[in-house]
Amino acid sequence: MNKPSKIEITEAANRIGTLIHRTPVLTSHSINKIVGCELYFKCENFQKVGAFKFRGASNALSLLSKRQLANGVATHSSGNHAQALALAAHQKGAKAFIVMPKNAPKSKREAVLGYGAKVIECASTLMARETTLETVIQDTGAYFVHPYNNLSIIAGQATCALELIQDHGALDCIIAPVGGGGLLSGTALSAHYFTSDIVVIGAEPSGADDAFRSFQANKIIPSTHPNTIADGLLTSLGDLTFPIIKKYVESIKTMEDSVIIEAMKLIWQRMKIIVEPSAAVPLAAVMKYRGQFRNQRVGIILSGGNIDFDRIPF
Amino acid sequence: MNKPSKIEITEAANRIGTLIHRTPVLTSHSINKIVGCELYFKCENFQKVGAFKFRGASNALSLLSKRQLANGVATHSSGNHAQALALAAHQKGAKAFIVMPKNAPKSKREAVLGYGAKVIECASTLMARETTLETVIQDTGAYFVHPYNNLSIIAGQATCALELIQDHGALDCIIAPVGGGGLLSGTALSAHYFTSDIVVIGAEPSGADDAFRSFQANKIIPSTHPNTIADGLLTSLGDLTFPIIKKYVESIKTMEDSVIIEAMKLIWQRMKIIVEPSAAVPLAAVMKYRGQFRNQRVGIILSGGNIDFDRIPF
Repeated sequence: MNKPSKIEITEAANRIGTLIHRTPVLTSHSINKIVGCELYFKCENFQKVGAFKFRGASNALSLLSKRQLANGVATHSSGNHAQALALAAHQKGAKAFIVMPKNAPKSKREAVLGYGAKVIECASTLMARETTLETVIQDTGAYFVHPYNNLSIIAGQATCALELIQDHGALDCIIAPVGGGGLLSGTALSAHYFTSDIVVIGAEPSGADDAFRSFQANKIIPSTHPNTIADGLLTSLGDLTFPIIKKYVESIKTMEDSVIIEAMKLIWQRMKIIVEPSAAVPLAAVMKYRGQFRNQRVGIILSGGNIDFDRIPF
Repeated sequence: MNKPSKIEITEAANRIGTLIHRTPVLTSHSINKIVGCELYFKCENFQKVGAFKFRGASNALSLLSKRQLANGVATHSSGNHAQALALAAHQKGAKAFIVMPKNAPKSKREAVLGYGAKVIECASTLMARETTLETVIQDTGAYFVHPYNNLSIIAGQATCALELIQDHGALDCIIAPVGGGGLLSGTALSAHYFTSDIVVIGAEPSGADDAFRSFQANKIIPSTHPNTIADGLLTSLGDLTFPIIKKYVESIKTMEDSVIIEAMKLIWQRMKIIVEPSAAVPLAAVMKYRGQFRNQRVGIILSGGNIDFDRIPF
């Protein structure tokens, strides 16, 4: 299996240590009381660009040669990977070309522009995004950095769970949200390499349950017509992330949007921190499958905090 | 002048140390860039009950004798003092009677009930609140704990700036919001006692500028018909808080609600933390009087994070 090694994850942590924030792990007595277990929230909503995605982008760009960076980097994304790649490129003094669908939130477009990247607009279909990206790469010679199906990205995302384990090693399990699987596969590898017994669980909206179905079917089943408020989790697993998840993740839980929204509101209300819907999916798993987690010590990856304030779902 | 001594504030900090959260001090590179100075945010939105008020309530109740606590404690409040007193009483095993106006937000009423306090409803005028409280005290024999015009409360609130100074002593100034003046007077005393040169500034909405006018007139001018989104800052200064503020606070800045809302949004967006409008008033002061703070190291007291999500002003 093609996967980052223990040494590669350790090296990624050292490499990006000064570029990223070491995010805090927060606890909430009142949420613990509600769910009946002990939760340790790893706050990637406080990460640079407001999401864990900066870890992977930062590691991937640090591993590119000067020559590979010479013409800049490129990707297509309407979300956090766009901002992450834009800032990581800015830090390396490289250009970034971001293909974004026309209907991407204005705030995300402005954030990407704010980091000095060039935004290329396209229609909102996956095909339009891919063909536009192809053209951009041909025109500019920029280096394509995939948002998750990339070993350097996976190793970068793995540093998040590694830090959580370093700070609070005595966990029974860690729950991470799953979209394309970069965060979940990295989390599973860190638990596998750096602990003897922490179980890793994926959390997914029922409206975009391709990871759950792929896990059951033992083959990648692409996401078709996903429909969920958790807009960071719409993508399909990749051929690098799926095998790691299949081997090192215990199970995938799916939750309805109503539970995700309830979990998100609970985090805002009780913890006074802002998380985006996708980041609330792991807590939603604990709320829905309460019995399974009773009295356990559970690590929760709060993946990000980027939200349009006119789209708050409560 | 009747004020808490240095020793009383030090003792308050020791007394409540295990009862309260030692809240973190956060910084934001992007907000620093926008305002052109270095800000150190003392996050009382993460305090128990979601506001600094728990410090004062906790200290005041710890100083009451068993006999004084025997019939419980009482106050009138529609806001954070109600929750603070309710939880502090719960921790001491004492009853709490909270007089709340009928139009108080449901979420605050529920929080107070959740801490096991008894809520007594009244009309929303100050007179109705005071006469209802009077009746409650006569009926129950409960001990009245004023929200700010009380030396134990002031000493408790002073521990917030004391912690900020312990963690980041090299500040040029500290800005605190001012309503009744408990937090501002405590902040000023801590800066006076524990530093040689930190200036303390009060920040107030122009729609409730009684502290500014009192400061100018050198006598207490009560708040009449206050009108501002900063609903924690509607009250008038007290005869204990005013003299301390007059002597130890350098100036009071007033800001329009539009600037307060802009500051609040900036904190939510860039820091990914939830603060209530009143807590955003000090940052609004930095934004409005940018020139005065240029290149300074400024402590900001984020006083609380309790907000109804259906009243978000942006």
